[in-house]
Amino acid sequence: MSPKALDYESLNENVKKVQYAVRGELYLRASELQKEGKKIIFTNVGNPHALGQKPLTFPRQVVALCQAPFLLDDPNVGLLFPADAIARAKHYLSLTSGGLGAYSDSRGLPGVRKEVADFIGRRDGYPSDPELIFLTDGASKGVMQILNAIIRGEGDGVLVPVPQYPLYSAAIALFGGSLVPYYLEETANWGLDVADLRQSVAQARRKGITVRAMVIINPGNPTGQCLSAANLREILQFCYQENLVLLGDEVYQQNIYQDERPFISVKKVLMDMGGPMSKEVQLVSFHSVSKGYWGEFHLRVLMLQTVDEIYKIASISLSPNVPAMIFLGLMVNPPKPGDISYDQFVRESKEILESLRRRARIMTDGFNSCRNVVCNFTEGAMYSFPQIRLPPRAIEAAKKAGKVPDVFYCLKLLEATGISTVPGSGFGQKEGVFHLRTTILPAEEDMPAIMASFKKFNDEFMEQYEDHRGYSRM
Amino acid sequence: MSPKALDYESLNENVKKVQYAVRGELYLRASELQKEGKKIIFTNVGNPHALGQKPLTFPRQVVALCQAPFLLDDPNVGLLFPADAIARAKHYLSLTSGGLGAYSDSRGLPGVRKEVADFIGRRDGYPSDPELIFLTDGASKGVMQILNAIIRGEGDGVLVPVPQYPLYSAAIALFGGSLVPYYLEETANWGLDVADLRQSVAQARRKGITVRAMVIINPGNPTGQCLSAANLREILQFCYQENLVLLGDEVYQQNIYQDERPFISVKKVLMDMGGPMSKEVQLVSFHSVSKGYWGEFHLRVLMLQTVDEIYKIASISLSPNVPAMIFLGLMVNPPKPGDISYDQFVRESKEILESLRRRARIMTDGFNSCRNVVCNFTEGAMYSFPQIRLPPRAIEAAKKAGKVPDVFYCLKLLEATGISTVPGSGFGQKEGVFHLRTTILPAEEDMPAIMASFKKFNDEFMEQYEDHRGYSRM
Ligand SMILES: Cc1ncc(COP(=O)(O)O)c(C=O)c1O
Ligand SMILES: Cc1ncc(COP(=O)(O)O)c(C=O)c1O
Repeated sequence: MSPKALDYESLNENVKKVQYAVRGELYLRASELQKEGKKIIFTNVGNPHALGQKPLTFPRQVVALCQAPFLLDDPNVGLLFPADAIARAKHYLSLTSGGLGAYSDSRGLPGVRKEVADFIGRRDGYPSDPELIFLTDGASKGVMQILNAIIRGEGDGVLVPVPQYPLYSAAIALFGGSLVPYYLEETANWGLDVADLRQSVAQARRKGITVRAMVIINPGNPTGQCLSAANLREILQFCYQENLVLLGDEVYQQNIYQDERPFISVKKVLMDMGGPMSKEVQLVSFHSVSKGYWGEFHLRVLMLQTVDEIYKIASISLSPNVPAMIFLGLMVNPPKPGDISYDQFVRESKEILESLRRRARIMTDGFNSCRNVVCNFTEGAMYSFPQIRLPPRAIEAAKKAGKVPDVFYCLKLLEATGISTVPGSGFGQKEGVFHLRTTILPAEEDMPAIMASFKKFNDEFMEQYEDHRGYSRM
Repeated sequence: MSPKALDYESLNENVKKVQYAVRGELYLRASELQKEGKKIIFTNVGNPHALGQKPLTFPRQVVALCQAPFLLDDPNVGLLFPADAIARAKHYLSLTSGGLGAYSDSRGLPGVRKEVADFIGRRDGYPSDPELIFLTDGASKGVMQILNAIIRGEGDGVLVPVPQYPLYSAAIALFGGSLVPYYLEETANWGLDVADLRQSVAQARRKGITVRAMVIINPGNPTGQCLSAANLREILQFCYQENLVLLGDEVYQQNIYQDERPFISVKKVLMDMGGPMSKEVQLVSFHSVSKGYWGEFHLRVLMLQTVDEIYKIASISLSPNVPAMIFLGLMVNPPKPGDISYDQFVRESKEILESLRRRARIMTDGFNSCRNVVCNFTEGAMYSFPQIRLPPRAIEAAKKAGKVPDVFYCLKLLEATGISTVPGSGFGQKEGVFHLRTTILPAEEDMPAIMASFKKFNDEFMEQYEDHRGYSRM
């Protein structure tokens, strides 16, 4: 009998390719070890709440009230909820048509889109049009919808940074397009070199590929860098010249751990440049409530903003989920000075951000204290991406074991310490250079022990595989 | 300058096709009229809460507590929440890894998948394996994932009922496959004729299409029929012979309005048939919390159950949203006799279902009392799908106005009465036959007036366009 439609061999090849890219050997091994009873430190996914980060109180109060609107009529409601949370819940319920259980406009609740537009206006200093804001269930979904609209087939290319967050490679594979890589420069703090970009495009064109779009991730995942305004200007200029849609993934805009290079939105940079360009460049940018100090994963909503005619692209999905939209409203409109919940809100969010800043420092310093490890400081986002300089004998040993060298290293790290990371090859890296990615999310008090355990493993590993003949270490 | 990637003319054609299929002229006109201040009765979408259906109290209490877990430590919590809701909230929080804000397994929380499997076991009388249950954000998303995996290109066909819920045509268009229609038989209460199915497959094969899957919707949307066990057996036999994956859309399984033909799941029918067939047929079925008497749209989760190896298909999305999974757990595990909230829960759900049953009756009878309108009884789901026998002169007038005839009729209905329906052509119908779809969801007390207003419009319309020469009505 011929294979059936859901038999593996007869599935859509694009879907199979995607599967290959996202399901890592490392994650599977870590899950196995956990089942066997080993304590695993999951630093492989940016999942703050799973690692103990507490949700912010105020938004959770508001959403709980919206979930159970009959509480608003209960005379005891004031015993459990502060008055400003009650007022906000009433406000958001009034923006829905039938509470949390009803469909809304497929672009999202108009009232929330208005609040988002106001936020963008305040952030950038330029008015933003609510009609150009789309809310989706997670930035991932928004990215996929746009790429689906842009990619017509193999001949369409999308410029993606290397290393990159694999959502992009997965989506491009799924829609059958061509990924056109450009390299971030590790020695320039993971900055972006426009000369390099030009080369990538030229090379793709020689292969017959029409480059249609470019992705930037700022702050970067996995690289943690913040792009400078100058760099963003060059990128915009480039997209203008080359007629590319620019997809600006800015989901980590609240996660900044230094003061030299604050977050600046690509939209603001474009508007600052002015002229015909600011009207011509097709820009789509993404934000999410799953990051920042919110980390409300289940409430991912995209704020998609664009200066051009993306509103012509219909959404085939029904409307985004309403609690998520309320969270988004609260994120762009947090309690203000004088509100009952203001002090608590500020205290809670500051605690989270300041602790992340300290953790970023502990991690970077920890990695840089290790033999053959160099690591740029995590300027933003939630990740550390150290380079591991594997000795030739380690690379040989990996080959013998049938493993990619960084996978080999990360598996040994996992077995020895329980630290579950993602090998750099999952994000792309230059030929012959190796990395791993961890999140900076483990609890602050556990951090020193984790880094000590990493250092012990790493330094022993290097000791074992280094060719001592060339060294004068004794 | 050449068109940019997001300019309409240069978008992916598949995406444009989808847009065309789902955005109806009628919906747009209704929104316009609403903006102009006209009172619109939106019966175009199955959106119970927007039309006044109250959410069930108990599940909302549980989810509100899970959203704001700090309430569980508040000494006053018992003043606002009953003890069984508190216990359930603790139970579901214990199934998560970090509360509602954390990612879960991409197939859904294992504990909830277990509860779903137990429910299916009780429903069908056959044990169900939690490993074969996937939770997704809405049945729509589950359907899209499966179709994406099955469709490799234009040469792959999917059998879809006509009339059908347009999710299927939209998804097939989006993934670039071929829709192979089969017709439901209106005079046989929208039943399915297997001889007809065979013809559809043969015809598709002659065009070089490999038919890979078949969709059934039971209870039907827009047709409202419940398939009999005998009919389901024939369908399964057919899929077995033809090597087709069967997609069973059973999202309306709780919405049944008669006692002769209760809902029976296609999985149960397959298991009852036994033999090698019950192991060979690849079956995927879908359920959702957005329907039934729950109508919790924002909390759509698919329960995807399959008797075969669908677990090999990786999910590229992150995990489904956690509040929705909790609702699903509550749906498959509602309060039991003796629980504090049992009586309230039963009362609320019965009220909703019994009222829907009465509304289905009022609507069908209302349509059948109109000139040139015939309508099957809504056995299940949420829709009424009357046939409108348009007189030739009405069809001519529509042509002159550049409209499809049923769109012409529905637009006139909208302008005259504010009743917003969906023309049958949006779902597919036989050549030369016309329908419209309404939901049965307007408030029961408004129903008589709505039907009277419909009758007045319809009978005047018929009066205007009927050719009186052939009639002896005076
Ligand atoms: C760079 C980047 N973009 C997008 C996303 C997805 O965001 P969301 O959770 O809103 O889908 C992530 C999640 O990790 C990310 O790291
Ligand atoms: C037949 C049918 N299947 C699936 C769906 C989608 O369900 P969900 O809301 O879970 O995505 C609908 C929604 O109207 C439907 O009518």
